[in-house]
Amino acid sequence: MGLVVQKYGGSSVADAEGIKRVARRIVDTKKNGHQVVVVVSAMGDTTDELIDLAEQVSPIPAGREFDMLLTAGERISMALLAMAIKNLGHEAQSFTGSQAGVITDSVHNKARIIDVTPGRIRTALDEGNIAIVAGFQGVSQDKKDITTLGRGGSDTTAVALAAALAAEVCEIYTDVDGVFTADPRVVKRAQKMDWISFEDMLELASSGSKVLLHRCVEYARRYNIPIHVRSSFSGLPGTWVSNEAPLGGKPMEQAIISGVSHDTSEAKITVVGVPDKPGEAATIFRAIADAEVNIDMVVQNVSAAATGLTDISFTLPKTEGRKAMDALTRSQDRIGYDSLRYDDQIGKISLVGAGMKTNPGVTATFFEALSNAGVNIELISTSEIRISVVTRADDVKPAVQAVHSAFGLDSESDEAVVYGGTGR
Amino acid sequence: MGLVVQKYGGSSVADAEGIKRVARRIVDTKKNGHQVVVVVSAMGDTTDELIDLAEQVSPIPAGREFDMLLTAGERISMALLAMAIKNLGHEAQSFTGSQAGVITDSVHNKARIIDVTPGRIRTALDEGNIAIVAGFQGVSQDKKDITTLGRGGSDTTAVALAAALAAEVCEIYTDVDGVFTADPRVVKRAQKMDWISFEDMLELASSGSKVLLHRCVEYARRYNIPIHVRSSFSGLPGTWVSNEAPLGGKPMEQAIISGVSHDTSEAKITVVGVPDKPGEAATIFRAIADAEVNIDMVVQNVSAAATGLTDISFTLPKTEGRKAMDALTRSQDRIGYDSLRYDDQIGKISLVGAGMKTNPGVTATFFEALSNAGVNIELISTSEIRISVVTRADDVKPAVQAVHSAFGLDSESDEAVVYGGTGR
Repeated sequence: MGLVVQKYGGSSVADAEGIKRVARRIVDTKKNGHQVVVVVSAMGDTTDELIDLAEQVSPIPAGREFDMLLTAGERISMALLAMAIKNLGHEAQSFTGSQAGVITDSVHNKARIIDVTPGRIRTALDEGNIAIVAGFQGVSQDKKDITTLGRGGSDTTAVALAAALAAEVCEIYTDVDGVFTADPRVVKRAQKMDWISFEDMLELASSGSKVLLHRCVEYARRYNIPIHVRSSFSGLPGTWVSNEAPLGGKPMEQAIISGVSHDTSEAKITVVGVPDKPGEAATIFRAIADAEVNIDMVVQNVSAAATGLTDISFTLPKTEGRKAMDALTRSQDRIGYDSLRYDDQIGKISLVGAGMKTNPGVTATFFEALSNAGVNIELISTSEIRISVVTRADDVKPAVQAVHSAFGLDSESDEAVVYGGTGR
Repeated sequence: MGLVVQKYGGSSVADAEGIKRVARRIVDTKKNGHQVVVVVSAMGDTTDELIDLAEQVSPIPAGREFDMLLTAGERISMALLAMAIKNLGHEAQSFTGSQAGVITDSVHNKARIIDVTPGRIRTALDEGNIAIVAGFQGVSQDKKDITTLGRGGSDTTAVALAAALAAEVCEIYTDVDGVFTADPRVVKRAQKMDWISFEDMLELASSGSKVLLHRCVEYARRYNIPIHVRSSFSGLPGTWVSNEAPLGGKPMEQAIISGVSHDTSEAKITVVGVPDKPGEAATIFRAIADAEVNIDMVVQNVSAAATGLTDISFTLPKTEGRKAMDALTRSQDRIGYDSLRYDDQIGKISLVGAGMKTNPGVTATFFEALSNAGVNIELISTSEIRISVVTRADDVKPAVQAVHSAFGLDSESDEAVVYGGTGR
């Protein structure tokens, strides 16, 4: 019986009842003979309420003080959780990110972890305590200032502590039962996977799946920490994310395909009438990068030989659309394009599975399924273990359903599944 | 132009508007050429809300985790205040008690400050910043755990920082205009004092005045830090508390008397029929002390020679009444008294002023005033600079008014004065 790191999101500790329920689950783990380290997010809407307060006193809250503010949220939840555990007759101590030894760079609001020195956690465990750690936060190495880790920060805290403490597993408790073959709100017969590889999970995360963020999975893969994603409400086994399927685990029959993900949070920009000569794409994407806009897919159409002009399309978060369009407009003379087209009525569907490239049948089945569903494809992009297409936003739902069925991922029953978003 | 420490209570930063108002006041002080360190309490009802949450997960919240929880409140207010100051174009940095170097013992929930090492505050000031410090909290010397200072903690933080930084003055901003000659809710013609000595302020604080707590005044006296109590709403000069009246200050004409305080939070216990022999009082007060009950006044009546029995009366906070009565009941055989009488319908009126003992006229005037107002006296207790009497609770108001008038403390106008309680 080794050391277990458990992470509970904001929805799991949204109120006093939730905190007491989580406390019982932690105590059960301890009773089973494990050492337990718990990483906890802020309660429910606390973070949003703090952001709202900040916006009332300052138009663009950011930087050191904003981090100091936001980290109050986890301080509240972790202290309450420790009290609730003590009330069940077990010893618990809570630790801020700084006390837990989560050392970061100095980039406030989206700091990166550069070291974890969990001496106080180790001592607390050795003395028989359950250690509760504030997620999402650390302390900067040079200035000793409080930092926050940005989106997905608490999951990353959990994986980083699991790595530093050589934990057996990092359990991520959330409000869904695990990782599904597709979003159950869209595909009724989506199935919970028992296991998925780090690589496939990375592709799912970067193509629209919200259960785990890319960053956290990447960290777990680097240190080879198995993640167990499961529900804090049901208590059922969830999905293991690891290098190899666990002994006794039951990989899906269609092992090659992990799942179908989708994303409707992106927009598409097409740069029309770009001179088809070397250096043009570089000029365009330098302008975008200088505006600090992250892009996703990039596609260049074949040049029309008669004109010597081509079109370049790319996708990006809708929230960055305005910034990217402004940057390109300012650079029109330098790039020398004809016009810009902005389209935010698109959706992206991705199929993820190991060994896809070496199975030509997969690509064919994918496009046949979309065709049979009457879905028009606007852009295509592929990687070693993923095919993504861009379609009209309205086509996303039927497209995901069609692909999910075509690859035999549908479960036999179509009972409703509870599913929701996850905290930070 | 030297260094100023300013402390703002919870009612001054109750909402975003309050925080912005306080930020403007701080920036004004900075613009006047001062270095500024600000100690801030939690916003309005934040602390009560956190206590309420704690009680929902654990019946008797206490100790290390309770401190971790409560200190989230100041973290929120100090970060928001720093943001609001930056928004006015000035540089500000916020610091937790730990970051500010407030070192305490390990008595959670009511820690005592044992050292202040404000290196980071000094650096922030030297770099031209305004430093915002979380009140009410510190870090324990041995275990490096977060502690809270208990009632009046933020005021004590401010005075302790002022002492460690050799500040010119410690300004305590509150929701009243200063220290008054009596509670303006009871005495309409009560006057704000321009100045009061540490000693008189200590007596007022321990006899019912709520403006400053005894502990904070004691700390200021020990390190000779002048306190300026003033309103964060009006901006008017308030009351200076210091060793000597400031140059150009206008001490009250009746300099000998500082003011009249009252207290209706106490109860009286009379132990009836105690054998009048050595050691009886010791037995009684050992029983009380073992129950960890703090007592205030103690009076023993003259023994009735015929019986050899006497009565011993003492006052104590009503909240401790049950505990004290239980302790005495358990010890009845050992003490050997006849019966106990518990009375929570009492009030205490105190007159405070330097040199009172050497001015016999003061005592006479005091009792004449009470007599003329038809107030019956139940207990009397005096110190070097204070006379206190216990009366019926209903008599407190006319008694305070009569004494205030008799000593010529009434102001010439009787316009209403805004007055309220203060934060922690």
